[in-house]
Amino acid sequence: MDKLKGGIIGAGKDSFIGFAHYAAAALYNEAEIIAGVFSSDPDRCIKRGLELGIERCRIYCNCTEMIEKENTLPAEERIDFVIIATPNYLHCKMIKAFLENGFHVIADKPIAISLAEALEIKDVQKKTEMVLALTHGYTGYPMVKQARYLIKSGKLGNLINILVSYSQGWLSPLIKNPEEFKTWHLDPAISGPSCTMLDIGIHALNLVQTITGLVPEKVCANLNSTIPGNCLDDNGTVLLKFNNGINGLLHASQVSTGEGNALRIKIYGDIAGLSWDQEFPETLEMMNSDGTSTIFKKGVPVLSEDARKASNFPPGHPEGFLCAFANIYSSFFKAIHCLRNKQQPCPGGESGWNFPGIEEGIAGLAFVEAILKSNQSSEKWIAI
Amino acid sequence: MDKLKGGIIGAGKDSFIGFAHYAAAALYNEAEIIAGVFSSDPDRCIKRGLELGIERCRIYCNCTEMIEKENTLPAEERIDFVIIATPNYLHCKMIKAFLENGFHVIADKPIAISLAEALEIKDVQKKTEMVLALTHGYTGYPMVKQARYLIKSGKLGNLINILVSYSQGWLSPLIKNPEEFKTWHLDPAISGPSCTMLDIGIHALNLVQTITGLVPEKVCANLNSTIPGNCLDDNGTVLLKFNNGINGLLHASQVSTGEGNALRIKIYGDIAGLSWDQEFPETLEMMNSDGTSTIFKKGVPVLSEDARKASNFPPGHPEGFLCAFANIYSSFFKAIHCLRNKQQPCPGGESGWNFPGIEEGIAGLAFVEAILKSNQSSEKWIAI
Amino acid sequence: MDKLKGGIIGAGKDSFIGFAHYAAAALYNEAEIIAGVFSSDPDRCIKRGLELGIERCRIYCNCTEMIEKENTLPAEERIDFVIIATPNYLHCKMIKAFLENGFHVIADKPIAISLAEALEIKDVQKKTEMVLALTHGYTGYPMVKQARYLIKSGKLGNLINILVSYSQGWLSPLIKNPEEFKTWHLDPAISGPSCTMLDIGIHALNLVQTITGLVPEKVCANLNSTIPGNCLDDNGTVLLKFNNGINGLLHASQVSTGEGNALRIKIYGDIAGLSWDQEFPETLEMMNSDGTSTIFKKGVPVLSEDARKASNFPPGHPEGFLCAFANIYSSFFKAIHCLRNKQQPCPGGESGWNFPGIEEGIAGLAFVEAILKSNQSSEKWIAI
Amino acid sequence: MDKLKGGIIGAGKDSFIGFAHYAAAALYNEAEIIAGVFSSDPDRCIKRGLELGIERCRIYCNCTEMIEKENTLPAEERIDFVIIATPNYLHCKMIKAFLENGFHVIADKPIAISLAEALEIKDVQKKTEMVLALTHGYTGYPMVKQARYLIKSGKLGNLINILVSYSQGWLSPLIKNPEEFKTWHLDPAISGPSCTMLDIGIHALNLVQTITGLVPEKVCANLNSTIPGNCLDDNGTVLLKFNNGINGLLHASQVSTGEGNALRIKIYGDIAGLSWDQEFPETLEMMNSDGTSTIFKKGVPVLSEDARKASNFPPGHPEGFLCAFANIYSSFFKAIHCLRNKQQPCPGGESGWNFPGIEEGIAGLAFVEAILKSNQSSEKWIAI
Repeated sequence: MDKLKGGIIGAGKDSFIGFAHYAAAALYNEAEIIAGVFSSDPDRCIKRGLELGIERCRIYCNCTEMIEKENTLPAEERIDFVIIATPNYLHCKMIKAFLENGFHVIADKPIAISLAEALEIKDVQKKTEMVLALTHGYTGYPMVKQARYLIKSGKLGNLINILVSYSQGWLSPLIKNPEEFKTWHLDPAISGPSCTMLDIGIHALNLVQTITGLVPEKVCANLNSTIPGNCLDDNGTVLLKFNNGINGLLHASQVSTGEGNALRIKIYGDIAGLSWDQEFPETLEMMNSDGTSTIFKKGVPVLSEDARKASNFPPGHPEGFLCAFANIYSSFFKAIHCLRNKQQPCPGGESGWNFPGIEEGIAGLAFVEAILKSNQSSEKWIAI
Repeated sequence: MDKLKGGIIGAGKDSFIGFAHYAAAALYNEAEIIAGVFSSDPDRCIKRGLELGIERCRIYCNCTEMIEKENTLPAEERIDFVIIATPNYLHCKMIKAFLENGFHVIADKPIAISLAEALEIKDVQKKTEMVLALTHGYTGYPMVKQARYLIKSGKLGNLINILVSYSQGWLSPLIKNPEEFKTWHLDPAISGPSCTMLDIGIHALNLVQTITGLVPEKVCANLNSTIPGNCLDDNGTVLLKFNNGINGLLHASQVSTGEGNALRIKIYGDIAGLSWDQEFPETLEMMNSDGTSTIFKKGVPVLSEDARKASNFPPGHPEGFLCAFANIYSSFFKAIHCLRNKQQPCPGGESGWNFPGIEEGIAGLAFVEAILKSNQSSEKWIAI
Repeated sequence: MDKLKGGIIGAGKDSFIGFAHYAAAALYNEAEIIAGVFSSDPDRCIKRGLELGIERCRIYCNCTEMIEKENTLPAEERIDFVIIATPNYLHCKMIKAFLENGFHVIADKPIAISLAEALEIKDVQKKTEMVLALTHGYTGYPMVKQARYLIKSGKLGNLINILVSYSQGWLSPLIKNPEEFKTWHLDPAISGPSCTMLDIGIHALNLVQTITGLVPEKVCANLNSTIPGNCLDDNGTVLLKFNNGINGLLHASQVSTGEGNALRIKIYGDIAGLSWDQEFPETLEMMNSDGTSTIFKKGVPVLSEDARKASNFPPGHPEGFLCAFANIYSSFFKAIHCLRNKQQPCPGGESGWNFPGIEEGIAGLAFVEAILKSNQSSEKWIAI
Repeated sequence: MDKLKGGIIGAGKDSFIGFAHYAAAALYNEAEIIAGVFSSDPDRCIKRGLELGIERCRIYCNCTEMIEKENTLPAEERIDFVIIATPNYLHCKMIKAFLENGFHVIADKPIAISLAEALEIKDVQKKTEMVLALTHGYTGYPMVKQARYLIKSGKLGNLINILVSYSQGWLSPLIKNPEEFKTWHLDPAISGPSCTMLDIGIHALNLVQTITGLVPEKVCANLNSTIPGNCLDDNGTVLLKFNNGINGLLHASQVSTGEGNALRIKIYGDIAGLSWDQEFPETLEMMNSDGTSTIFKKGVPVLSEDARKASNFPPGHPEGFLCAFANIYSSFFKAIHCLRNKQQPCPGGESGWNFPGIEEGIAGLAFVEAILKSNQSSEKWIAI
């Protein structure tokens, strides 16, 4: 299998997630990043591009230039795909432009800043038939795949209750000193109509959706703006109603002082329960009805096929979120090869390509718009 | 200090919490249980009483007999206090009867099954000036006292967000087989208008109230009856609004399959956060704004005075919930001695006697009634 | 079953372990402590006795007086057993005296300060046929019983390796300031020929012996005196050889700065492994050969009969070391009743009475004497 | 900074550690692997090389060919360094050959299979002045660097005791069925005179050495061959004496059934203690003398400069052992650039280049040879 060639938009000097994309794309040796736009400032763009080992002639000033010039190259030199790792408000425009010009796209979440935008992207993706993936990276962990498998194979029985929380503390310093640092996440023009829910709340939702296959039907939300002067949410809690009478709860906060990146989920069925914590991602606890727990571990032979394949190293060799991220990339790459080879049906797990895409992007924005509406409403339940 | 003499209503053969009361009352050697009603069935009552080493003549058939006969005894032989450890619906009637007849009372939660009942008890308590305590036993742990101290002394800054959850799994088997076992907790005539919220939800609320001093002003609740045929709640989630814009979340469930007794609280301020788990009660994590955590441990010298006094053994010697329970009893006993000695002001910590009483009982029932109302309402927020 | 009557030697104001004995003996309501010697200083003795609710006439100045006066009482008033909770050097003399005068004895570890003394006690115990128990209290935990059961029933396969460590930090302050506080544990006249090994090393050994049934045959020890001026060991490590080629390692330290009471054991067989930590005593991890772990929890139905009976409260209600201690007492009491009723065979678990006694005491002292010898020797292995 | 060009020996289809080298070398974009020998079987070698994206003309059959052909290339195309990731017995010969032919070398541990070999390598390295690094990858973790910093800056006071254990279970299946799978680690011709100590025991030693700067002076070892027919050690324990009276203990096992890759260290000083677990590498516990613990976390601002620089992502984004590995590579690359630029003194942390090299390799082999000797000896202590 030839290495795919990719470009990246983002991955500037201070963007840790940009670097994560860059490194994850190349980690399993299935692709290499050979082009990019690294900053809206031309000098910084070139400097960073060279630093990342990109040839000068493949460092572009903006997407338009990138699309234009790449398309003048012979097909075998041209990039196959592009990574969109920019601030939120640019996602929609860029994704559409690349898809329409014949490039596969893997984009950071959220896919867009409104449901309307997300639906536009869907139209373009349908029309162009290009591959479009969304980096809900946490779903790339082996233990997330094992959780999905356990539920699918009935080990939990009928689901009763789902609790997910995503707590970070990085915005807390702004409560006492709103000038301590600047972040575009609090600027609605860049971030969109939500800070925390659009940044991490949709990760929590996607985790629920990936593991259980459920999407909430109704929400009741309480969002808060803790930081003085902040017009967006920095903390919020949402009651959820899924179909079949299953209940849920989603909490997301970026002012949970002292927390790092605490994405935690608990799922209870009438036979067993599951508990997983992204900060200790290599283990998954199944709480059995007999009162014992079974601890599954990354890399052990009893895991489901999906989970085993997502483990790169033996148990006890922590892989971290870069490998999880890289697993999403790897599925994306497989889908591209699939498409090229007109393989039918396309492999990659029971659910097809086995990575989040446009439908998950739409679900996330529908969710966020519903909770923003719920937060304003005096009615208790808002349908999604 | 002479040992106080006590009686107990409850503590039948199969009541683990009854035995916990019995043992906790005597643990620190400040009191002895010498009388009781151990079952509504006379034979079982006598059998259990003898088993617990009670003299035959102090084993009574019911409260009325107990009150009557104890009051015929000389004051120095008579019991000083009574423990009420019966099913919920009997609490109010019994508490009032004993207070009115000159016995101090320590009762299991909930103090009653309606706010109206709780207010009646308050009137009686005020009138009789007897000591009345409520065994929210988890507040007796040293680390709960340390958490309260840290917040009171400003170590967390201004509070932002409070998350409390109480998950048990013991009712789960009833989902698949509602006949698997019988429990009065699901019988509204005995349990009152709520199962889970009245049984454990109010523990979670009391924990918040004890640690932070806050009581919610508004609630938005979603209660569920997961067990087929159950007309009471067995699972529920409540959004909370405290004063000063502080937000909160309370989840309680008795169908969290595989969970034991998972009472967990997280409190975030603008300077630091706190995390405590009742199943690992001897440590308290303070998440500092610099990203480190400080782990406080039971029995170490740096604890607050209250927390140190509540530690009976050196660090690493787990004390368990019986010692926490006994700490509540110990405060109750001190209050009795205080009252006798007309000591003024009465010692026992900044907050007076330092144990939950009628006000906490009232708060609990006001809370439960508000969430029951919220659960029926299409309005989002219900004031307490 | 009538309550047994007990006396206690020790349990002075500052003795936490003395109070633990006192409370554990009475916890399950099978006995009451009605007599005692609480200090070698007569005034403090009386004061403490009254504080603990002992009648003035049953507070004695010393053991001789206690034995003499108790024996003048009618049998039905006389104490049945005595708790020895004094400093080490008094154990042997007192145990023998009480046994010889018709009192059952439950003694704190070590049973004596030399193997010779321990063998003398054995002779007396054999001759008098009184019940003699030794409070290796940690073996009273349900999860220790479950560990023993799992090994006995072959779940680990053939044992390969046993690692036990017992780390405390309470002596560390003496390293920088040997005058910071006084403790008899560092005085060879009171403590015996070892500080740490005799105080906690033998607990670690007893834990191995209780769980596996194995006793080491050869040792190779490195003992250290870290505290300036200390002539006894305060830290030490011992390589162990059991029969059948099973290997082991025992580490004990009281200068492990920052540690509380960290008694931890790991046992590996050719099918599975076990891990248990006394500071989190309610769970037991079995590491399965398929790479998963099974977590057993106190109070759940799948435990062995022994382990279930040793659980007093449902899962998630931490019982702590007092309940573990009380389980040892409870077995001791059963053995007394047994003996009285001439029951044959005596129940109490596969191993008879199911509590540590003279054989375990002898094993502990043989072990300590061997490692003291090994520490002095330039030979590698010393037989026990 | 131009990307360095590297070759790799090893990284065959089934070598997870080979792939870890390959991926770690490229992770931070400072180098690319463009040549290699991937198997001693020519077909598999070529297949694997192409799979990894290596140009056909840079896939070599063996080291001799690689050296020869690379040296015919113009300097700017030639590889700068080579990764040795072969079975142990080949290390010495290959390292020497590459150094002597002008290639920098980064080798997997152990550096050789005898002390004599290691000393030969030292001579060659000295003579050639090429850079030679050794991938004790676990020392690349931020928390290991933080531990070293805390000790160096006196936060633990004078060290007292060091306990390190490295437990794996992957060889356990061979106990019951020695034919279950084949591994060269049990073949002395390939592995050298030790299996477990040479494979993981030296990792444990290096961890001690890296964190504390101490190297043991005397050892007392008990090694075991648990697997039937195995003539090498698969389990072993070593008592250690460092200078200044500091004591230690090292346990390593590959038959710890159910364990993954449990490298754990505890270090006690007279002021505080430290505890770190490779399976949960992102946190470091400092046990303070006041009984609290401080938990340091990867990526937080209070870490030492070294530890901060070694963190690539914010707290709560697990980096895993690949990033730790890549940190070693990154130091190695800096040293190469340094040497080229004749920079003097060479930066890279207080200790110079800040990666394990020939001295650590020698220390490891001196240690293993001493414990092999100790294991055979009836004398207790063997000097290193």
